[in-house]
Amino acid sequence: MNYLRRRLSDSSFVANLPNGYMMDLQRPTPQGSSTTSTSSTSSTSSTSSPASPATERRQPPSIPTPASNPAPGSGSGSMAQNVPPKPVVRKPKILLVIDDQHTDWAKYFRGKKLNGEYEIRVEQAEFSEINLASYVNSGCMVDMQVNKGGTRVVRSFKPDFVLVRQHAYSMIPGEDFRNLVIGLHFGGVLGSNSLFSIYNFCSKPWVFSQMIKLYHSLGPEKFPLNEQTFYPNHTQMVTTPSYPVVVKMGHAHAGMGKIKVENQQDFQDITSVVALAGTYATTEPYVLSKYDIRIQKIGSNYKAYISQKG
Amino acid sequence: MNYLRRRLSDSSFVANLPNGYMMDLQRPTPQGSSTTSTSSTSSTSSTSSPASPATERRQPPSIPTPASNPAPGSGSGSMAQNVPPKPVVRKPKILLVIDDQHTDWAKYFRGKKLNGEYEIRVEQAEFSEINLASYVNSGCMVDMQVNKGGTRVVRSFKPDFVLVRQHAYSMIPGEDFRNLVIGLHFGGVLGSNSLFSIYNFCSKPWVFSQMIKLYHSLGPEKFPLNEQTFYPNHTQMVTTPSYPVVVKMGHAHAGMGKIKVENQQDFQDITSVVALAGTYATTEPYVLSKYDIRIQKIGSNYKAYISQKG
Amino acid sequence: MNYLRRRLSDSSFVANLPNGYMMDLQRPTPQGSSTTSTSSTSSTSSTSSPASPATERRQPPSIPTPASNPAPGSGSGSMAQNVPPKPVVRKPKILLVIDDQHTDWAKYFRGKKLNGEYEIRVEQAEFSEINLASYVNSGCMVDMQVNKGGTRVVRSFKPDFVLVRQHAYSMIPGEDFRNLVIGLHFGGVLGSNSLFSIYNFCSKPWVFSQMIKLYHSLGPEKFPLNEQTFYPNHTQMVTTPSYPVVVKMGHAHAGMGKIKVENQQDFQDITSVVALAGTYATTEPYVLSKYDIRIQKIGSNYKAYISQKG
Amino acid sequence: MNYLRRRLSDSSFVANLPNGYMMDLQRPTPQGSSTTSTSSTSSTSSTSSPASPATERRQPPSIPTPASNPAPGSGSGSMAQNVPPKPVVRKPKILLVIDDQHTDWAKYFRGKKLNGEYEIRVEQAEFSEINLASYVNSGCMVDMQVNKGGTRVVRSFKPDFVLVRQHAYSMIPGEDFRNLVIGLHFGGVLGSNSLFSIYNFCSKPWVFSQMIKLYHSLGPEKFPLNEQTFYPNHTQMVTTPSYPVVVKMGHAHAGMGKIKVENQQDFQDITSVVALAGTYATTEPYVLSKYDIRIQKIGSNYKAYISQKG
Repeated sequence: MNYLRRRLSDSSFVANLPNGYMMDLQRPTPQGSSTTSTSSTSSTSSTSSPASPATERRQPPSIPTPASNPAPGSGSGSMAQNVPPKPVVRKPKILLVIDDQHTDWAKYFRGKKLNGEYEIRVEQAEFSEINLASYVNSGCMVDMQVNKGGTRVVRSFKPDFVLVRQHAYSMIPGEDFRNLVIGLHFGGVLGSNSLFSIYNFCSKPWVFSQMIKLYHSLGPEKFPLNEQTFYPNHTQMVTTPSYPVVVKMGHAHAGMGKIKVENQQDFQDITSVVALAGTYATTEPYVLSKYDIRIQKIGSNYKAYISQKG
Repeated sequence: MNYLRRRLSDSSFVANLPNGYMMDLQRPTPQGSSTTSTSSTSSTSSTSSPASPATERRQPPSIPTPASNPAPGSGSGSMAQNVPPKPVVRKPKILLVIDDQHTDWAKYFRGKKLNGEYEIRVEQAEFSEINLASYVNSGCMVDMQVNKGGTRVVRSFKPDFVLVRQHAYSMIPGEDFRNLVIGLHFGGVLGSNSLFSIYNFCSKPWVFSQMIKLYHSLGPEKFPLNEQTFYPNHTQMVTTPSYPVVVKMGHAHAGMGKIKVENQQDFQDITSVVALAGTYATTEPYVLSKYDIRIQKIGSNYKAYISQKG
Repeated sequence: MNYLRRRLSDSSFVANLPNGYMMDLQRPTPQGSSTTSTSSTSSTSSTSSPASPATERRQPPSIPTPASNPAPGSGSGSMAQNVPPKPVVRKPKILLVIDDQHTDWAKYFRGKKLNGEYEIRVEQAEFSEINLASYVNSGCMVDMQVNKGGTRVVRSFKPDFVLVRQHAYSMIPGEDFRNLVIGLHFGGVLGSNSLFSIYNFCSKPWVFSQMIKLYHSLGPEKFPLNEQTFYPNHTQMVTTPSYPVVVKMGHAHAGMGKIKVENQQDFQDITSVVALAGTYATTEPYVLSKYDIRIQKIGSNYKAYISQKG
Repeated sequence: MNYLRRRLSDSSFVANLPNGYMMDLQRPTPQGSSTTSTSSTSSTSSTSSPASPATERRQPPSIPTPASNPAPGSGSGSMAQNVPPKPVVRKPKILLVIDDQHTDWAKYFRGKKLNGEYEIRVEQAEFSEINLASYVNSGCMVDMQVNKGGTRVVRSFKPDFVLVRQHAYSMIPGEDFRNLVIGLHFGGVLGSNSLFSIYNFCSKPWVFSQMIKLYHSLGPEKFPLNEQTFYPNHTQMVTTPSYPVVVKMGHAHAGMGKIKVENQQDFQDITSVVALAGTYATTEPYVLSKYDIRIQKIGSNYKAYISQKG
């Protein structure tokens, strides 16, 4: 029998889904079997499909209007500014999508216009393929490595908006892209999720701390949480009340750095590994789960997904 | 002739002040020479003196009431909860002050009561002397190394509130205490400045990004900024428009990692050092400044300090 | 029942011994029960007792004569240079012992003279308590933190010889002292074991590689080895032929970073931890052992110790 | 006017040469202008041309016979073993060349046979393109990423010999390949230079320490050295006797991490950068040099190259 190893705090849910999985969940489900809409005005047709946009035959997601985030000036412009009524020819807005190649984001924006006026040019790359320099007055200039017929060339552009679909940080060597997040923010590039949110999601126990606040204000009935313990380093990891426990080391995703421990002797061995890794760690009771529930919020629309495993 | 090397973005101002410096600035100055109060209700007597509390003969700072932050339960309590009118004997509240030994914080709270009811017990240590473990339900347990007659002992306690007076992070090896900040937050310990604020101040260009937003919304007249450039790593640091420039590497304080560069050849050499350090970097025009202005905000009171050098 | 988890490749044997353990092994044992001398001229009385010098009532170990290592000049002198026959007053030679406080090395050298002429001054400290600067012509100047009545003071001196009794390197943060080993070598300080040997023992698989050479030249009969596998990083750790296996991560000692893995699922979890730690790893079959055999070589004397557990 | 910034301790000499440079030096020079043969039997025709093999019309370098390094078994064989006189069909020997793509090493071995019997198959890759797993009994299995028509494929093979033409280590993030050097050694792959030599060249001050030994035994007349000073970390870098000095941080090559410092104020700034980088550092007087002299030793042949700059 299979079980769920991921919980709500696991941000790698979508990235780990098998191809087509989310797709199925999002098919019109009149009986509301596996998709539960918690918003009375929820209209699937107006919702972006994060996992598999390839199946969408709907409206493109309208990029949220960041009214309180004025443009960093010098022509790079905001995607949200008021537009004059008469049609004029305008430079297209550049949307940088940070994602791997499995999804071709350009086709979802083909022929679409922002506020009916700006064409949208999509540039897509992984974090590992871009670099940048950001300036107070002239914004963010991105260099993107492009594979052109076997040779690598670099294309430079100034994004107006960034859609981040990859993890910005993992403690695994070579997977720390927080410098790029800072640079995009420094250059005034608007983002979805907001770059502020992305930055503060770069440490899972930091996010869990916010959830603990909710747990204390809403109560365990309305907002139940696992009994997690946080250790800044290995030295306090002397014992744990009961076994099995799940030990999670540092910040990673896709299940990296996560180990189920059965007894005190193994716990001590794992503690020595936390020492070697030089990271913080959390422990929590091992829960044999049936499924994950994922909650999606876009604008004022909420959706909940169940992901049953076996 | 002397000049100012620090600017508003430099968080090490207070830590670098010579002893007694801030003290002088805070003496009653009826002519308002070097202290400018921007708040009409400003009362120096109700203000904490961050640099030299030893000269204070005033009220202790009333710890701000975090109404929206309920206590993490189990008796550790919030420092802000409503108290019944009749006096009862209560466990003292524990205030953890993270600071070096130069200031004895205990004496400023001696004999004071929180809300007229709770005694305040002060525990003071540097980041490097504490460790902790944090739990969802039972909060944060701090272990503190104490030097007792030449031998080191460990004292354990559960802080109700933390006052952070040290830098939580520097890229210099051995000076990364963000894990402890996460742990305090995880354990529901309230802080001043808020732990959320402290966490988001752990990267100077991240803070500067917020200031760029203000710059764009308020305009360069009301909110002038240096023309800083951000590089996520050394590879984009090819050239800079004019010399001399100041190159700042990574996140550190007290002037660490900051170099004035006079010409292109030196700039290239410094670029190679940024590569070796493996950090981000910023460049900005070298400004020969006269003094720093520091702005302090406690509650609704603002104060501005000028620090003239030579 | 108890078992041996350490093998010959484990350099932490002596450091991990309970107090007094080695002592027992070194008692005069005419029947040669647990100590086997492989040298016909072996005289325990002329052998240094590495684990417990406190029990020695014998000659101090004569420091080996490094004839091929001339002194770096300027009076710091070699401990091995020829001495004129007539007695003159000479500056004492300084022996730096890098060890923790459990053994007081000074008393073993009290009243002893080097080559009958030089007094020996012993300075003892842990790696973490020393710093240095080394020069081509004037050798190595060591700064040592000393605790004097509760306050820390620094004492400076120029060692003639160093006896390294601590591990010079572990991948655990804060335990990398290879820079000091380089500095001692740079300053021409002679060492036992030689600094060259210590440097090349800072990676266990590097040492094991030498043993594999012996294994191939002497054959598995004369020089048996465990069937170890080396992975430079986690990516090649896909599977292993049989379980249980012992996975060792990176370079550490005292059993740190070592885990027994029972099945393929756990092996995958551990692989993800190796990724997080960013180290190399080895795997080897789990062997239920009875005891360790330690071989000691000083000059031309060999001794073998058995350490039975349980 | 131009000057030499590299000294004998700089291993990046060849890598930094402009294309065709070494080529010119190696042209037949009857008057011995820029090439000085110190070996009476020196025959340029039997010498490998490390910088530019493309100009060779000579014998391939005969790979040195490692008589004392028996093969790690299982048929991978040594390249040096005695061969029976009668010709039999044999598996070709695999030579792994670790170099960038600028030199096509395969063509220098085309049609050549090892000991007249074994064909030589050349596999060429950069360190960053290979991974491996090494076994006690079955040697080293290398996985090599190959670009085949735009897509990356992996080829696996078991090298008999490795020729390392890249730096195995730099402190710049992502340039530490010592794990691969250990793995090749662990798997019994013979190398030129020997893997032992390559490992011990991974820290320049470690190499310089050996040169200091020579300096003390041969004397400054026969073996002159710069007056270098070594600091394990920044804390001892308080001052330096005279300016300008050259500060070199950590281990890197191609001039990375090297800065000329003119005065005490700049020296302090650089010291703070060494702190941030977390490395050791050396200082040495700035020398305005005319040219480098490079000495090459293959077997018993020595050659010296002069490289004049400007």
